[in-house]
This record gives sequence, structure tokens and C-alpha cells, in this order.
Amino acid sequence: MNKTMTLVTIVTEGLLKEQLIAILRRHGATGFTITRTEGEGSRGIRASDWEGPNLRFECIVPHEAAEQILQDVGETFFENYSVIAWLTEVAVLRGDKFGGDRK
Amino acid sequence: MNKTMTLVTIVTEGLLKEQLIAILRRHGATGFTITRTEGEGSRGIRASDWEGPNLRFECIVPHEAAEQILQDVGETFFENYSVIAWLTEVAVLRGDKFGGDRK
Amino acid sequence: MNKTMTLVTIVTEGLLKEQLIAILRRHGATGFTITRTEGEGSRGIRASDWEGPNLRFECIVPHEAAEQILQDVGETFFENYSVIAWLTEVAVLRGDKFGGDRK
Repeated sequence: MNKTMTLVTIVTEGLLKEQLIAILRRHGATGFTITRTEGEGSRGIRASDWEGPNLRFECIVPHEAAEQILQDVGETFFENYSVIAWLTEVAVLRGDKFGGDRK
Repeated sequence: MNKTMTLVTIVTEGLLKEQLIAILRRHGATGFTITRTEGEGSRGIRASDWEGPNLRFECIVPHEAAEQILQDVGETFFENYSVIAWLTEVAVLRGDKFGGDRK
Repeated sequence: MNKTMTLVTIVTEGLLKEQLIAILRRHGATGFTITRTEGEGSRGIRASDWEGPNLRFECIVPHEAAEQILQDVGETFFENYSVIAWLTEVAVLRGDKFGGDRK
């Protein structure tokens, strides 16, 4: 059986990398992936900042932690940075069935 | 509270970049991300075209706009290009709560 | 009308690329995308292996095939490699409506 979890995806400016990793860890995320991406934001006023490489973070956590990560990201970055973040319900391969030490 | 929206993901040949951005904008997408990817398509006849760098577009829009984007992408590209596109229901961080100007 | 399918996402070490492609094909996946990513895993013991470039595989298949791919990935790699894999229900653009030969 797979386990229902929540995928958190955050796309933002590269300079926020360490701060974002700190937020993910604070809410119990033990693994994440980071992908380089480019994009164009919806705020005319910040369009020039949004050009160029951005980072797309993904981590999978329990639903409650996911909600808290989004809240934290919003409060910390939304006023001053280009950031978009969303949650997707997913079914995750469970490590404990296969000898892994992940829960 | 987060807002339920639809994530549109489109993976296609790099040469379609500007045309795809035009379709996204026509349907009201004000932001999107583009990631380089490689892939292998399902059409034997076009396998050679599908090798090499492709682009993965993502944008988040209301559900109705998402359906229209898919329809438009299908009608415009499906006959002659390698393209796969899908919709995912997601919960998006709302900008208006945090002083952002996004709705 | 779009078709409900299952998106399989697998993030793992780059060296498993060919083996992973073989698993996807064995379960009927005829197309997939691969994106370079970096990440940090949840297993302290393997943290050093998990640093550096990883690969993020995506393919879209019927739900039953998706479950089998996850099971196979778990049995083959979970004990000895850093791997995370998840399923997302998505609505896919149907090729047969637009003159494409994909079903």
C-alpha cells in the first residue's frame, strides 16, 4: 500500500534557496529536490526580478506540515519576492516495506 | 485558506516555446515556469524529433482556462508535434493574504 | 474530453537511469521525461550519495500500471539507493481527438 501525502511545490528566486531549505526543515521535511527553472511572474512591478533562473523546490510531507510550510512561505516572502507555491495530494511509495529506514 | 486551482503541465519540443507562451497568455495565464527536460515520446514515427532537449511548461489557472489551454494546445500542435499535456488539481498559496497583488 | 491517468514521478540517483527506463517500459510506458535535479535525502546514512545531480523521471500511465511501477521500483532499489516515488491523478490531453496516434 502506498501512503497519501502532500507534495509541496515552491517556485521562487534563486537567492532564497537557503532560507527556503530552512523553512522546509523547520516543518519536518527530511528530503527535497531542487530544479532550475525559468519563469515569468504575474507581478508587473517585479517582472525584471523574475526573469532568469529560478528554483523549483519539491518536498513531500504530511498534509498538516504542508499547510504550515505554505503559510510560512507566504508570511516570509510574499510581500517582497516572486514566489508561487502549491500543494498536490499524492500517493507515495513507502520505504518501510522495502527495507528502507524512511517512514 | 488556499485556493483550488488547476496546474497545467505541457511537455513539448523546444521550438514551440514562443507559440506556447502565446497560448498561455491568451487564456489569462499571468505567470509560468519553463524547465529543460529530455524525453522519449510514444510515437515511433517521431522518435527522432523527440530526442534532445524539450521544455516542460507549468502554469496555474482556474479550471475552465486550463481546459481551454489543453484544447488549444491539442488543436494547434498535436497533429504535427510531440506534445503531452495534463491537468492536476492543486491548492495554491493565495497572494492577497500576504500583501501580494496576485488574486 | 480529457482522460484520467496516473502521473508517476520518481526521483533517484543518476546512475539508475537505464534500469529505471527499463522498468517504465516493462510496464507499458511509451513516453517519459527526465529532468536533472539536485536534492537531499532523508537517510542520514546515505546523505553523501544523495548530494549532486539526480534525475526526476515522469511518465503517465493507467493507474494499475502506475501501482506496478511503484512496487517494482521499491523492490528493486529501495534497500540500496536513494529513491522517492509518488503517484498523482491527472487529466491528460487525448491524442486521438487531434489526429495523433496515441491512445
